[in-house]
Amino acid sequence: MFEKILENVHAKTPLTHMMTNYVTVNDCANVILACGGSPIMADDIGEAAEITAICCALGLNIGTLNQRTIASMLAAGKAANALGHPVLLDPVGAGASKLRTETAFRLLQEVNCAVVRGNTSEIKVIASGAGSTRGVDADMADAVTEENLEASIAFIKATAARFHAVIAMTGKIDLVGDAERVYVIRNGDAHMSRITGTGCMLSAMMSAYIGANPEHILEAAAAAVCAFGYCGELAARALKAGEGTMSFRNHLIDALSTLDMASLNGGKKVEIR
Amino acid sequence: MFEKILENVHAKTPLTHMMTNYVTVNDCANVILACGGSPIMADDIGEAAEITAICCALGLNIGTLNQRTIASMLAAGKAANALGHPVLLDPVGAGASKLRTETAFRLLQEVNCAVVRGNTSEIKVIASGAGSTRGVDADMADAVTEENLEASIAFIKATAARFHAVIAMTGKIDLVGDAERVYVIRNGDAHMSRITGTGCMLSAMMSAYIGANPEHILEAAAAAVCAFGYCGELAARALKAGEGTMSFRNHLIDALSTLDMASLNGGKKVEIR
Amino acid sequence: MFEKILENVHAKTPLTHMMTNYVTVNDCANVILACGGSPIMADDIGEAAEITAICCALGLNIGTLNQRTIASMLAAGKAANALGHPVLLDPVGAGASKLRTETAFRLLQEVNCAVVRGNTSEIKVIASGAGSTRGVDADMADAVTEENLEASIAFIKATAARFHAVIAMTGKIDLVGDAERVYVIRNGDAHMSRITGTGCMLSAMMSAYIGANPEHILEAAAAAVCAFGYCGELAARALKAGEGTMSFRNHLIDALSTLDMASLNGGKKVEIR
Repeated sequence: MFEKILENVHAKTPLTHMMTNYVTVNDCANVILACGGSPIMADDIGEAAEITAICCALGLNIGTLNQRTIASMLAAGKAANALGHPVLLDPVGAGASKLRTETAFRLLQEVNCAVVRGNTSEIKVIASGAGSTRGVDADMADAVTEENLEASIAFIKATAARFHAVIAMTGKIDLVGDAERVYVIRNGDAHMSRITGTGCMLSAMMSAYIGANPEHILEAAAAAVCAFGYCGELAARALKAGEGTMSFRNHLIDALSTLDMASLNGGKKVEIR
Repeated sequence: MFEKILENVHAKTPLTHMMTNYVTVNDCANVILACGGSPIMADDIGEAAEITAICCALGLNIGTLNQRTIASMLAAGKAANALGHPVLLDPVGAGASKLRTETAFRLLQEVNCAVVRGNTSEIKVIASGAGSTRGVDADMADAVTEENLEASIAFIKATAARFHAVIAMTGKIDLVGDAERVYVIRNGDAHMSRITGTGCMLSAMMSAYIGANPEHILEAAAAAVCAFGYCGELAARALKAGEGTMSFRNHLIDALSTLDMASLNGGKKVEIR
Repeated sequence: MFEKILENVHAKTPLTHMMTNYVTVNDCANVILACGGSPIMADDIGEAAEITAICCALGLNIGTLNQRTIASMLAAGKAANALGHPVLLDPVGAGASKLRTETAFRLLQEVNCAVVRGNTSEIKVIASGAGSTRGVDADMADAVTEENLEASIAFIKATAARFHAVIAMTGKIDLVGDAERVYVIRNGDAHMSRITGTGCMLSAMMSAYIGANPEHILEAAAAAVCAFGYCGELAARALKAGEGTMSFRNHLIDALSTLDMASLNGGKKVEIR
C-alpha cells in the first residue's frame, strides 16, 4: 500500500525545510538525503519564510528551541500554510518545561499542522492542552500495549479529530491516524532508543514524505514510520560481533539509503484499524 | 574500585542536562546514552533552570559560547546548586580568548562546581585566575610526564583545595583529584586527539557519572576518565586495515556502549596518590 | 605539483577558525583534523576577532546564518584581513534567499576573500552581483561539461579577476582558478552528493590548506579539491555490499585521514588551462 508514497519521494526529491535542534540536525539532514529527499536548514527570521517558499514541506522540531527560533518557526509555519505546503510538528520535550509546552501549543494554535509526531508522553501533553480544559484521557496508559490498544486507537482518533491533523505517536507499537483510520505499526527495534535522535530523524523523513505526497498525508506519515522502523530492524540484524550503538546508527542510515520497496513489502508489519 | 560507580549509572539511567557547544553536541548525546545515561540539551533562559530541575546533573561546556547561552548557563548552574545537583564545568578554550577565560572565571565564582575537567592548558588558566593574584605554578610544566608527576599531583591537590572541586586534568597521563587524593590514570590512546570532541565527550560522560553518584564525586570522575580512556584503547585495537579517524570514533562509542566491568577491571591503569 | 602544499599542512598543523553552519560543523571539524589541521569554532562577537588572531586562516560559511553570526563574520573577516590571514568564503545557498545573497555580497565587499568556493549556482549568483549590474554570463550553463568547458574556464578567469580572488567552482568537473590559470579537476564520485556537507567539508579542508600555504593560495585550493575528490573515489571503492550513505561518509573521512602523497599522485586527474 506504500508503493506510490515511496515512488513519489524518489521521483520528486522533495526539498524539505527543517527547523530543528542542533543536537541531531546532521543526522536529520543525512536521513532526508538517504530516503530520497533534499534538506535545507534555515532559522533566521530574515529568511525562514522565504526558504519555506522554495520547499514543498516544513518540519518544526522544538528541541533546543529559543526565543529567536520560535519566532522564526511561527513565521515559516504561516508562510507554509499560505502556500498550502504541509507542516509537521515534532513537540520534542513538550511537558518537560513550560517553554516547550507553551511553544507546542502556540505553534498548534497559530499554524495548521498536517502532522504531529511525538512519543506517547509528548502526544498526551498535546492532547491535554492547547486551550482545552479537557485533561489527558484517563484510559490512555503510558505506553501503547496489546492490552490497551483499543483505547489507544480511540485516543488517536479523538486527538486527530480535535486538531484536524494526522497524529503519529511512536513507541514500541506505533499508531498513525486521523479521525477515521489508524495504522498500527509493529516495526522497529529496541536499539533505536539507545542512540540520540531517532525521533527527530523520523520526523525529518516524514516531512520529506508528506512533502512529496501532499494529497496523501496519512499514508505518507504511516509509510515513513513503517520504513524507518523496518530499517531499524535491518540495522539490528546488520550488527556484527563487538559493534555497539554508533555502528547501529551507521547501519540504520545505510539501510534507509538502500531500502527498496520489495524488501519493505516483505518486512512491513502494518494493520489498519 | 569503580564497580559501584558503574552499577549506579546503569541502575539509575541518570538524566543529564548538557549545555554544550554545537560542534560536538551529537557525540556528547550519543556518549551519554552509550554509557548508560540519558541526555537533555536546553539552552534558552526561559527553560534552562527548569530542565536542570528534572535532571540529576548539569554539565557546562563553554565551547561556542555566546552572550545568550552564558546567561542561561549561570541560571542553570544556580538552579542546580539550589537543588544540590552536581555541576561539571568544562572550560573549553579558557585562555584562547578573554571571553572564554572570563566566562570560566565567572561560572566558577557564581556556581559551585563539583568538578572542573579540562586539558593541562585550560586547568592552568583556571588555576591562575578567578580573582586570585597567584600565578600559574612555575613548576607546573605544559604536560604531565613521569618526570614532573610529583609536582603535578601537588598542583592538582592545591587547585582542588582552592576551588573546593574535583579537578580532572586530562592528557597523556590523566590526573583526577581533590585536596587529598589524586587518581593517576594511564589509560587512553593517541588516536583520541585526531578526532574532534573527545574532551567534550568525556565531560558529558563524567556529568552522567557524577549525576548517578552524587555522594562519590571523586570516584565517579576518576571512573569516567578511566573507562573513557580504556575504550579509546579498545577502539584503537578494533581499527582494521585502511580505517582512519572516523572509524576510530565509531569504535570508541561502540566500545563505550558495550563496556562491561570485568573488561574494565582487566584493562584499567589506575594508581592513587 | 601538490607535494609542497600537503607537506606544509602536515608540518604546520594549521589552526583554522571556521565560522560555519550547525548542520555539518562536526564533519568540518573532523575533516580539518583528518587532513592535518586543527579546528576552532567561535562565533560570538565578543571573541570572534580574537580567535581569528590566534589562527592562520578563517573560513566563512553562511549556511544557517543569523543576524548575530553575520556581525561576527564581518568582525572576524576584517581582523583576518588586518593580520594578513587568508579568508575563504563559502556562500552556501546564495540565491536561495535575499538574506543569503545579500550577506554573501556584503562579506565580499567588506572582507578581502582569498578564495570563494561554491557550487555552480552559488558562484553564478556571486558573479551576477556584488554591486555590479552585469548579469550572469548567458553562455555559462548550469553545470560544467566537456562541451562548455572553454566558456566555463573563461567565466572563472573573469570572475576571479573581478573579485581579486581564487574561485573554486565545484561539481562533476571542478574548476579552480585565478585571472590567469584554471585547474580543471575531474576527481570525485557521485556518492558525494548523497551525504550532507561535502561542500562544507571541502571548504573547511581548503581553509586549512590555504592557512598552511598563504603564499600559494591557488595551488592550495586546487590541491584541496583534488585530494577531497580523490578521497571520495577511494571511499566509493571501499563500500562493501549492503553499505549505504553513512558508511560512505565514514570511508570518506577515513580516506582523508590516511591519504598519502604517492597515492594522490597516482590518482589525481588535473589539467591546467
